[in-house]
Amino acid sequence: MKALVYHGPGKKSLDERPAPTLAAATDAIVRVTHTTICGTDLHILKGDVPSCEAGRVLGHEGVGVVEQVGAAVAVFRPGDRVLISCISSCGKCEACRRGMYSHCATGGWILGNRIDGTQAEYARIPHADTSLYRVPPGVEEEALVMLSDILPTGFECGVLNGRVQPGSTVAIVGAGPIGLAALLTAQFYAPAQIIMIDRDRRRLDVARTFGASACIDIAQTDPATETLRLTDGAGVDCAVEAVGVPESFELCQSIVAAGGTIANVGVHGVKADLHLETLWDRNITITTRLVDTVSTPMLLKTVRAGRLKPMQLITHRFKLDRVLDAYDTFGKAAESGALKVIIEMA
Amino acid sequence: MKALVYHGPGKKSLDERPAPTLAAATDAIVRVTHTTICGTDLHILKGDVPSCEAGRVLGHEGVGVVEQVGAAVAVFRPGDRVLISCISSCGKCEACRRGMYSHCATGGWILGNRIDGTQAEYARIPHADTSLYRVPPGVEEEALVMLSDILPTGFECGVLNGRVQPGSTVAIVGAGPIGLAALLTAQFYAPAQIIMIDRDRRRLDVARTFGASACIDIAQTDPATETLRLTDGAGVDCAVEAVGVPESFELCQSIVAAGGTIANVGVHGVKADLHLETLWDRNITITTRLVDTVSTPMLLKTVRAGRLKPMQLITHRFKLDRVLDAYDTFGKAAESGALKVIIEMA
Repeated sequence: MKALVYHGPGKKSLDERPAPTLAAATDAIVRVTHTTICGTDLHILKGDVPSCEAGRVLGHEGVGVVEQVGAAVAVFRPGDRVLISCISSCGKCEACRRGMYSHCATGGWILGNRIDGTQAEYARIPHADTSLYRVPPGVEEEALVMLSDILPTGFECGVLNGRVQPGSTVAIVGAGPIGLAALLTAQFYAPAQIIMIDRDRRRLDVARTFGASACIDIAQTDPATETLRLTDGAGVDCAVEAVGVPESFELCQSIVAAGGTIANVGVHGVKADLHLETLWDRNITITTRLVDTVSTPMLLKTVRAGRLKPMQLITHRFKLDRVLDAYDTFGKAAESGALKVIIEMA
Repeated sequence: MKALVYHGPGKKSLDERPAPTLAAATDAIVRVTHTTICGTDLHILKGDVPSCEAGRVLGHEGVGVVEQVGAAVAVFRPGDRVLISCISSCGKCEACRRGMYSHCATGGWILGNRIDGTQAEYARIPHADTSLYRVPPGVEEEALVMLSDILPTGFECGVLNGRVQPGSTVAIVGAGPIGLAALLTAQFYAPAQIIMIDRDRRRLDVARTFGASACIDIAQTDPATETLRLTDGAGVDCAVEAVGVPESFELCQSIVAAGGTIANVGVHGVKADLHLETLWDRNITITTRLVDTVSTPMLLKTVRAGRLKPMQLITHRFKLDRVLDAYDTFGKAAESGALKVIIEMA
C-alpha cells in the first residue's frame, strides 16, 4: 500500500509499505477513504515529538471502511463505515473507566505517533470497539474527518474546559483550525461574545463568517487593551489558548476576568510565565487537556442534525499521490489560506 | 481605644486611637473581644501589600459584640455576639450575586488593608448584614476567630477548589496554619491519603495528630520522589499550594496526577514557571482564589456539631497590651512553635 512515512526531522516521503495485519484480537484493519493533516504532524516533522520515531506512518484522523476484525471485536464487522478517533482507548483501564481516554494505559494518542497511522491506504486500529465510531446515515464522510481530532479538541479542551455558558464572554487566541473548531462549538452554549484574536487577516475573516462577534488583528491592535474595552473593562469569562506559545498563554492571563477560566488547547514546547503575583487572588481556573474524544458521539449528533457543519473547515482536497503537495499547502497556510486539507485515497 | 497600627514597612505600634464611628447606614460598630494575627499581616509589615497605607489599624479576623448599628442594618442589633468575616460584601453587586464575595465592588478584603481592621478594641464593619455571622450558642468564641479567615480559606481555596473527593489522594505543600486548615477540612470528604509536605518538623508532627496519612520532611527526603512512591507512581489527585513561593508551586506541578488539580492557596509576590511543555496534555486544572467566605455558615455548623475543632489551631494567647509580643511569637513560628495566636481584648 501507499503511505506517508516520517523519516526523521524534516524528512517524509510517500512510500510503498506492506498493508497492516491484525496484531491483537481487539484490532480492526480499516481501509482509509479520507484522512487529513494536523498541526501536530508538522510538530513531528520539526522533531518536537520524540515518541514518534523515523519509519512511522503519520496521521491520526480519518474515515474508512472496516476490512477485517480480530476475534474479540464485537461491535464492528467488515464493511462497516467508520470514523477513526485520534485517541485509542481500551475502555477497561482506570483512566478509561473515568472517561479520561487520552490517558488510556495502552492507548491515548498512539496513531501516527507510537504506531503507524492513517495517512495510508490501510490502518490498524487497536481497541477497535472503543476507538471507532459508526458513520451515521446521511452524513458526508469527508466532513467527518473533522471529528477525528479538531472538533472534539476545540470542544472538549476549549469550550467544555473553558465552561462556556449562556451569556459568557469568550476570547479565542488563535484562529487556526483548532481555534475555529472552538468558535463553532462554543456557539452551542449561546455565549454573549466570542472575540477571535490572531495576526492572520484571512483567518479572522473566516472567523467572522463562522460567527465571531469581534475579531482583533494583533498586527493592528493591542489585543489586551481591545479585549478589555470590548468587555467593559472586566475581561473575558473564558480565554481559550489555541496557539501553543508562551506569548499567547500570557495574553490569556491579561484578559481573563476575575472568576474566569483559561482553557489551554495549544501544544506547548516550552514553559510559560504564570503571573501568580497578580492572579493568586483573581479566582481563576487554568486547564490543560489532551482530547479524550468523550464528546464524539454528541458531536456526531450535532452534525447529523445540521447544528454543526464540519465541511466549513475544509479548504483543499488532494489525492493520496499528491500528499506531499497537501503538506506544502497546509504548512504554508498564511499563503494558501488553508484550514483543513482532505486527502482522498481513491 | 487601643489599636495595633501599621506605620509603614517594618514599623508598627500599639497606639491610642479614637474609636470608630458609623460612616454608612449599612455599618456596624463591633466591640472586638478576640482577634488574631494572619500571615498576611506579616506580608503587610514587609511592605508587600501596597494597598495598605501607613496609619492603618491591622487585622481582618475577630469575634465580638455589636455595639451600634446604622439605620439600614436589619439583621444585627446591639448586644449580638458576632463573627467578623475577613471579606466584606455588599451582597448586591454582580460579584456578590454570583457568590464571589471576594470581588465585591465595594468590599472584598478591605479590613486591615484599605480600612482600619480588627486588632483594636472596636472596629467598624461595612455591609454589616452580609459581613457578620451570628455566633451560634454553645460554641467557644475564641475558637471561632479561626473561621474569620484561615478555615474558610483552607477549605474554599484548597479543598473545594482542589475537588477533594472520597478516595482522592491529596498533598498539601506547607503545614502552616492555612495548610493545616486545609488538612482539617479535607477530611470532611474522606480522601484516601493526605500527604503533608514541609521543612518544619514540629509542624509535621502537628499535622500527624491532625490526621495526615503521611508527612514528608523536605529537609530529609525529596518530596516529589516520595509523593510518587506513596501514590504508586501516579501522583496526587489534588495538590494544595499553601506556601506562596515559586518552588512550592513548581513542586505541585511535579506531583499532580493526570486529571488532577493544583489548588493555589498561597499569597504570591512573584511569578512562577508553568511547565506547559509537560502539562499541556496531562488534563490538569490549576485554580487560584481569594476566599469568598461562602462556606462560613457551613463551617459554623461543623464546629457546632463537633466535626471541626478550630481550637486545635490555637497555640498561644496574649492580652491586647502584649500584642507586640504576639507578633514576635507568631513571626518566629519556627522557634516558638506558634500556629495561631489569640489576642484577647480584656
